Amino acid sequence: MPRMFVPGPVDVDDEILQAQAQPMLPHRSGEFEEIFRRTSEKARQLFFTKERVLLSASSGTGLQEAAIRNLVNKKVLSCVNGAFADRWYDVAVSNGKDVEKLAFEWDQPVNPDRVAAAVKKGSFEALTIVHNETSTGMQNPVKEVAEAVRAVAPDTLILVDTVSSLGGAKIETDAWGLDMVLTSSQKALALPPGLALAAVSDRALEKAKTVENRGWYFDLVRMEKHRLKDSSPATPAMSLIFALDRQLDRILAEGLGNRFDRHAAMAHRVHEWAESQGLSIYAPEGFRSQTVTTIKNERDIDISGLNTFLKKRGMRLANGYGPLKNITFRIAHMGEIQMSDLEGLFVAMEEYLS
Amino acid sequence: MPRMFVPGPVDVDDEILQAQAQPMLPHRSGEFEEIFRRTSEKARQLFFTKERVLLSASSGTGLQEAAIRNLVNKKVLSCVNGAFADRWYDVAVSNGKDVEKLAFEWDQPVNPDRVAAAVKKGSFEALTIVHNETSTGMQNPVKEVAEAVRAVAPDTLILVDTVSSLGGAKIETDAWGLDMVLTSSQKALALPPGLALAAVSDRALEKAKTVENRGWYFDLVRMEKHRLKDSSPATPAMSLIFALDRQLDRILAEGLGNRFDRHAAMAHRVHEWAESQGLSIYAPEGFRSQTVTTIKNERDIDISGLNTFLKKRGMRLANGYGPLKNITFRIAHMGEIQMSDLEGLFVAMEEYLS
Repeated sequence: MPRMFVPGPVDVDDEILQAQAQPMLPHRSGEFEEIFRRTSEKARQLFFTKERVLLSASSGTGLQEAAIRNLVNKKVLSCVNGAFADRWYDVAVSNGKDVEKLAFEWDQPVNPDRVAAAVKKGSFEALTIVHNETSTGMQNPVKEVAEAVRAVAPDTLILVDTVSSLGGAKIETDAWGLDMVLTSSQKALALPPGLALAAVSDRALEKAKTVENRGWYFDLVRMEKHRLKDSSPATPAMSLIFALDRQLDRILAEGLGNRFDRHAAMAHRVHEWAESQGLSIYAPEGFRSQTVTTIKNERDIDISGLNTFLKKRGMRLANGYGPLKNITFRIAHMGEIQMSDLEGLFVAMEEYLS
Repeated sequence: MPRMFVPGPVDVDDEILQAQAQPMLPHRSGEFEEIFRRTSEKARQLFFTKERVLLSASSGTGLQEAAIRNLVNKKVLSCVNGAFADRWYDVAVSNGKDVEKLAFEWDQPVNPDRVAAAVKKGSFEALTIVHNETSTGMQNPVKEVAEAVRAVAPDTLILVDTVSSLGGAKIETDAWGLDMVLTSSQKALALPPGLALAAVSDRALEKAKTVENRGWYFDLVRMEKHRLKDSSPATPAMSLIFALDRQLDRILAEGLGNRFDRHAAMAHRVHEWAESQGLSIYAPEGFRSQTVTTIKNERDIDISGLNTFLKKRGMRLANGYGPLKNITFRIAHMGEIQMSDLEGLFVAMEEYLS
């Protein structure tokens, strides 16, 4: 398998690539409904929820739109400290909501006290926050933000994007009191893109029923109604669900605890290696992603040249995102990546750097 | 390959199932952009358009929503003579548009004169029509409707759902003056579900720029901006695009004319066979689908029992849709189905019926 140290689409195991290639079934057949049911059941373990997981034939951004259209009539607060948080803000603007942006520097985590103060002042139906910023390698303190918000505005729904962390970091939907936790297939779940998943709380669904103009395709109420019949309103992304079904078995066989530990250990190793090379980590300590590390390019490395060099060895990493291009670069350590793959990457990088 | 005579998801050729299993690539890489570019280029031939084809990680219903949100500020006319036309009407309602339903009996085609009269009376920005009703096997006279509308309301955009016909019947986007022609992967294109395609005219895109609240995920203006860079706003359904790339080669190698003729010949053969069994066709002559035939169950066949019998032989067909369940049944003849497959089905059915 080639090794891409990029934060999605990530490499997919051959068994999972092949799982997509199973013959099609009618989606309203008992055979497929059974696969749909067991897949959405197993997914609840990943989200640490007793409630429900909905499957969407879309990318994760589709579910950012679902969150906004279903759970916000008017006012929403958007915590922004990276490109994908900013996208969610744009999604809210594009959908005509009255959205207030609570901006933080990209190299700083979302601050629970500032969020609580903003929520206390405004009267927000919901807030959006990104757990793991793919653009910066920042892990935001979602649990602490949720606690702080709950203390001052218990009715504000907490909507969390875990696109690049769920499956690689422990996110406890129920215990942390989160109302919608969305992710997509092509990151730490190590599946091909085109499928998105969301845990949705009972109270979020109750709220959705009161929101006008939810649309059709991403209507959570309609999705839940069909889920109760082990189905989806529109035709599901069947080959990707075949792959998810198999991949959840692999993930649960590894053990969720082991999987999170593997990701944490790889993150730690990347930090250690970067520092050994005289390079520092973009995100402050305590807020570093378990799945992708953004490294400051303090040695003025030609990132494009580095990637050309790495590709000859069947590897590649990611340049910095947007304004961070060339001044940072990113090493993803999620999904199928193992510590030994990282060691192989470091050997090659050291060769390039010397 | 098992033979499913159901109108989607249809059987997918092994080569295409396998095409999904290629290794992932970063979606913003030159390698993937080249695949994205050539796939969307080849797709233009299928739609008979010189303008553009957009690819969406969604089912066809997602693009029904795109059409409504992008091309209608307020008023839209929805021509309804089947379940999927009715869904499009629901999509317009769910998105808060002022939609007028122009209803026809399900066993009657959309009538161009009635549409023209309705368009003349109202002042509609767009009308929606389904080319091929999967629920009834009706092929609506889209070309004639477009002509009639153009004569009385040249500015009204014509939005066409060709979900179950494109790739099996000739639909001339440019020559017929259609503004948005949408389809999905799992019908006559014989791909797995989860991908949708749309030809979008220049004037539709100009209109979209003036429409507020288009949302983010299905924003056609945003999709076009990225298409010009051989990319998509959100992560694309990569494995399905790999499959589409390969399948378009197979379709173009068969030849579009040959492909449409094959579908027409199979439709004709199904009509002939049904009549030989004392069963009549639901759609009136001249308006019968090339890809799926709805047959009146005038012999009170136990459709569920028939399917159980057929499944033992690796085949299955579709019951009637919604209110037509059991009083009709459907034989799909699209995608990979060949005349010899139909003959095999008829042998089995005659055995069951005798």
